Amino acid sequence: MNNPVELILKKRNGISLTAEEIRFFINGYLDGSIAEYQMSAMLMAIYFQGANGDEIAALTSSYIDSGRSLRFDPSLPVADKHSTGGVGDKISLMLAPIATALGLYVPMISGRGLGHTGGTLDKLEAIPGFQVQYGMQEFQRMVEEHGLAMVGQSAEMVPADKRIYALRDVTATVESPALITASIMSKKIAEGAKHLVIDLKIGSGAFMPNLRRAKELAELLIHTGNSFGQKVSVVFSNMNSPLGHAVGNALEMIEAIEYLKGNTLPDTKLLTDTLVSQMLISAGLATDQTQAVTLIDKALSSGKALQVFEKMISLQGGDPEVIRDYSRMGTAKHKIPLIAGQSGYVHLIDSRAIGYALVKIQAGRMKVSDTLDYSAGAILYPKIGTYVHKDEVIGYIHCNDEAKGKEVARLVLDSYKLNEIECHPEPLIFEITGG
Amino acid sequence: MNNPVELILKKRNGISLTAEEIRFFINGYLDGSIAEYQMSAMLMAIYFQGANGDEIAALTSSYIDSGRSLRFDPSLPVADKHSTGGVGDKISLMLAPIATALGLYVPMISGRGLGHTGGTLDKLEAIPGFQVQYGMQEFQRMVEEHGLAMVGQSAEMVPADKRIYALRDVTATVESPALITASIMSKKIAEGAKHLVIDLKIGSGAFMPNLRRAKELAELLIHTGNSFGQKVSVVFSNMNSPLGHAVGNALEMIEAIEYLKGNTLPDTKLLTDTLVSQMLISAGLATDQTQAVTLIDKALSSGKALQVFEKMISLQGGDPEVIRDYSRMGTAKHKIPLIAGQSGYVHLIDSRAIGYALVKIQAGRMKVSDTLDYSAGAILYPKIGTYVHKDEVIGYIHCNDEAKGKEVARLVLDSYKLNEIECHPEPLIFEITGG
Repeated sequence: MNNPVELILKKRNGISLTAEEIRFFINGYLDGSIAEYQMSAMLMAIYFQGANGDEIAALTSSYIDSGRSLRFDPSLPVADKHSTGGVGDKISLMLAPIATALGLYVPMISGRGLGHTGGTLDKLEAIPGFQVQYGMQEFQRMVEEHGLAMVGQSAEMVPADKRIYALRDVTATVESPALITASIMSKKIAEGAKHLVIDLKIGSGAFMPNLRRAKELAELLIHTGNSFGQKVSVVFSNMNSPLGHAVGNALEMIEAIEYLKGNTLPDTKLLTDTLVSQMLISAGLATDQTQAVTLIDKALSSGKALQVFEKMISLQGGDPEVIRDYSRMGTAKHKIPLIAGQSGYVHLIDSRAIGYALVKIQAGRMKVSDTLDYSAGAILYPKIGTYVHKDEVIGYIHCNDEAKGKEVARLVLDSYKLNEIECHPEPLIFEITGG
Repeated sequence: MNNPVELILKKRNGISLTAEEIRFFINGYLDGSIAEYQMSAMLMAIYFQGANGDEIAALTSSYIDSGRSLRFDPSLPVADKHSTGGVGDKISLMLAPIATALGLYVPMISGRGLGHTGGTLDKLEAIPGFQVQYGMQEFQRMVEEHGLAMVGQSAEMVPADKRIYALRDVTATVESPALITASIMSKKIAEGAKHLVIDLKIGSGAFMPNLRRAKELAELLIHTGNSFGQKVSVVFSNMNSPLGHAVGNALEMIEAIEYLKGNTLPDTKLLTDTLVSQMLISAGLATDQTQAVTLIDKALSSGKALQVFEKMISLQGGDPEVIRDYSRMGTAKHKIPLIAGQSGYVHLIDSRAIGYALVKIQAGRMKVSDTLDYSAGAILYPKIGTYVHKDEVIGYIHCNDEAKGKEVARLVLDSYKLNEIECHPEPLIFEITGG
């Protein structure tokens, strides 16, 4: 049954599509024989009716086949991490060099920030000269030779996903577990990762509102990876407090470099340790998390992880001196203190609101075409459960426009809900599944 | 909140849109600021989430305001009928002149046949010279002067519905009660009808599969009409047997003229009587159906209804001699008898299959651009419950292509399911509501 309207109707009526029908629809969309308005109707029908494992695998496969894939030597332990996005999430910047220092090959494809969430590519580009656009062959060669490259998605890789994602973005069909799964997994399979850990974030700064919904998505992700021979584990993590202290591109890069120098923070350490451990265990380089963390700590204390990162900066055209001289990434003119207006335990942080507020000083963007101010951002100390005293400086806004910075400071302060009743925060790691 | 994506999201999440938001979305679509793919995503979201009475009224109002409306003197009893479409449904051809003969003003806007259903415009065009395209002013003048005009939808009337209907057709979003309601009612309100009767068909030849679903739609139709000050009644009628004997454009026109000459058939008589009665009662021209049928029978026996029809043909450029000389509409070369292959009571007639079969001899069309053979069609005598004898001639296929006609004859015969067990047919009129 290869008529676009009939296929939309079938999905709309809750009947599963065959692999051949899905392939026909995706290919038809790519070659222009199926219109944008038919694809968006299909996407909305999938949003409502979902898709089963076979359908998602077929969709993922169509995405992959629309472009080129990396082909690593099967003996290489190729591994990667994917995060569903949060506020202050610079984990990739530490995780990737640590994993590489411990023998994994990491072909990391990252994205840009949009709305309240930041993007690893933007953080990398805070380093003067750093290049993220590479062809597939060059990307593969960099990973084979150095063990690590962090790049943007090449136009040659899963172009179907790129086009469909852009359409989902303007048709309110982003939040579909089936479509999210095909989008994430097609890239992670096409890049050749055999071991994948997914940081599935839950909470105020994440798109997943609760653990139940997150688990449904995790199941689809694991099933899809497995059906392409990929080992997938999912870490359900708490995104109710921004991660670490820094939010903003250069500020996060500084925090990441400090981390690699051994100056870790408790939350980013726990999350990075957990994610890298999953990668090492999956690849057979560690038997459990205790052993993995011992290895990780050695990679940090020996300076090896930092060396891997510094070399990657050089290989990708960046200025490696940023490792020693942060001012090379630029410094914001103004540093506005965030002064607590009352005392109390932090009960709630509206991380999403913080992310959106920071867009106003160009630490983030609302549209892909918006320009960023890499030096802008925030340093935020309190976490949920922290006791804050009235008039205490709980952080800073770094900005070049003082008036806007003050407005952002107000918004950020407002996103902390304080109360004199003691507050016990939820754990950072809720659960780990798959693997 | 006037951002197209946010509005799609809102509807997708089951939150009602305000009248202003609906107007913004429809107007944005018409002026090109909202893309086709966003409209189709919105339509699919409406398909799944439905729309409440206020939303449908706002949608209907946006449709109406996208074009021009007829404005009749408030003292005129302007009335119309809408049918949801069936096989052999030539009721409009009899109903409109009868209603006009009894003092109603009928600005009837009809459609063309598509798929298994016929269209009144096509049947009218079987009359040589008959014109159906008129501007709004001319249409209004014809109704004011003669009491009746039967035309196609002008491009000036509800253009939003016309564009959106075309989009629904290619995105599997036709079968939405909310969208169906706005589409039907916007036209019936814009044409100025103050009294509307809707023939809501249920069964094998209709798009409504059962009475429960039909009642949900009826409620939306009545509520919407009422909110524009229109009185609406709904007749739930049985579409399991084709109506009357004739299916096909000239054949149905002949059957309609015979009817107006007094040669009625039981099913078309009952349905026409019921529908016209609702119009007369609504307009205060009759107190109940008994009184109404007395008036109707007088309009037929006096020849007044036929005169109204004949004059309308003249006024709209048609050859009025067809009333006396049917051959002026053309006669098919071949008349292939339908010979029953077995005896038994008719338990089931697949009216939809008959409609589709007749497309093969151009009595109907699959695409708007397909050309019709007005003389082609079928005469079908048995109804559900009729006893048929083996080798009995149960009807004829009229066609100009004998080979295709024979194929159609086979398909039509196959659509009658016979059984020796006696069969009691369901009533033709299930229920009447509203008014």
